[in-house]
Amino acid sequence: MKIGVVGLGLIGGSLARQIMRNTEHTVLAYDISDEVLKKGALLNAYHDILDINAPEIDVDILIIVTNPRATLKILDNVVPRMKSGAIIMDCAGIKKEVIKKMEALKQTREDVFFVGGHPMAGREFSGVSHSTATLFEHAYIILTPVDMDDICALERMKEFFKEVKCEGITISGYDKHDKIIAYTSQLAHIISSSYIKNPLSSEHVGYSAGSFRDLTRVAKLNAPMWTELFLSNKKYLLEAISDIQLRIEEYKTAIENDDEEKLMELLQDGTEKKEIADKKAREKKQC
Amino acid sequence: MKIGVVGLGLIGGSLARQIMRNTEHTVLAYDISDEVLKKGALLNAYHDILDINAPEIDVDILIIVTNPRATLKILDNVVPRMKSGAIIMDCAGIKKEVIKKMEALKQTREDVFFVGGHPMAGREFSGVSHSTATLFEHAYIILTPVDMDDICALERMKEFFKEVKCEGITISGYDKHDKIIAYTSQLAHIISSSYIKNPLSSEHVGYSAGSFRDLTRVAKLNAPMWTELFLSNKKYLLEAISDIQLRIEEYKTAIENDDEEKLMELLQDGTEKKEIADKKAREKKQC
Repeated sequence: MKIGVVGLGLIGGSLARQIMRNTEHTVLAYDISDEVLKKGALLNAYHDILDINAPEIDVDILIIVTNPRATLKILDNVVPRMKSGAIIMDCAGIKKEVIKKMEALKQTREDVFFVGGHPMAGREFSGVSHSTATLFEHAYIILTPVDMDDICALERMKEFFKEVKCEGITISGYDKHDKIIAYTSQLAHIISSSYIKNPLSSEHVGYSAGSFRDLTRVAKLNAPMWTELFLSNKKYLLEAISDIQLRIEEYKTAIENDDEEKLMELLQDGTEKKEIADKKAREKKQC
Repeated sequence: MKIGVVGLGLIGGSLARQIMRNTEHTVLAYDISDEVLKKGALLNAYHDILDINAPEIDVDILIIVTNPRATLKILDNVVPRMKSGAIIMDCAGIKKEVIKKMEALKQTREDVFFVGGHPMAGREFSGVSHSTATLFEHAYIILTPVDMDDICALERMKEFFKEVKCEGITISGYDKHDKIIAYTSQLAHIISSSYIKNPLSSEHVGYSAGSFRDLTRVAKLNAPMWTELFLSNKKYLLEAISDIQLRIEEYKTAIENDDEEKLMELLQDGTEKKEIADKKAREKKQC
């Protein structure tokens, strides 16, 4: 197959390199920056440059890996010129807007297939220079179908990502995706970003270890991208923020009141919830 | 020298094993549990058992590695029977109470030296079975002097931990220690424990990656120990909690108001603060 990758950033570059590494497919890449394309060539991220303005875009699968708003524009631009039978997948971190857009575009091209995607890995660095050819080998790819008509396209993408050697594939409705991601990913970034802002963070050296390192890792982030993602998932993200605010307040109250019993109970409950989460992860691995 | 280690848990066991591994000193160990001592022997954690009830405790350095309250009791118990010239170090995660106790005991034995200690490493598991002989090779040891009369003892402990091959040694007043640790370690544990309690944590599998893993790692903890530590550092810990509560609220408000500019600014500020913290860590490594 011919696989097109639009946007050679950290995620697009890593996906392209992993496809190159683990499959025999032909990879064609496009980026608005010539410099990025040159770096990508040096990193063996693609076979050839993708002509995204051709009258017919000559790929079997087109993977769009840009910031969410740019993805919506690119979809409008490329869909009329896709080959019949081609599949388009996006990689936006929140799915509602892009799935709605795909639903609308589907009416204009019934012979083109749409699948939402979200590769669940990242690094605290941006750009193709930090991409790796194995970033998704230990990561889940979440696939969010547009509707059940696309079940075959979904199957094809599942097979494709198995071939690319991703650790696992999750099939999920977009609403469930956006709700859980608000917690597992978006809230984590807000908490990390809030945590690092204590003025004592500049004095941590020699007074910190793993817990500080882990809590602050994702505080360094791509601000414009996360701003778009947070605002496009406002409802679920605000729910997740409110939840942790209530939990933190419980600890604060117990400490203010020197309530040893309550504090112990809160900590024990957290330990149990973590053990449940870890157990579910181990069970899944055994499947 | 003869080094006594009281309490063969994760930290005491790891310290004992690292002393065994990297030095020629004789290690004597004590634990209230015979089973733990047997496991410790299998793990080569000590040469011989320490008789903590002997009329004179025959060690040059005694390292106490128990929960904070137990440490205070053990100090009362052992100080009258220490050899003249011996050094006692504790390992409590918060230093104020133990340093005050040491100050008082110092009046009773002017020929015994006291140094507060805090080895900055841990694992999300407890007990000697999870100890390792290299846990502190990439960790700082914080030493908190009781007063300047103990400067020679402090120097001896610094040399000792260099020999044990710890990554670095921080000399700090206990108050500064307790203030920074409230943020770098205690707050991290409260946030992680709060984060895991969202009911969605049990559905994270297939929808989560590094940020979830990092944010939740230390949610699994030794509840009785952390309860003691939190309550003995109430003032600084409440300050750290209030700080992050204000930061989180800023994000919430910006999202509620769809204030894209403000949200971007908040995220960019977090990124810069993280870069400053990382830069300081790199500079220290170059020293």
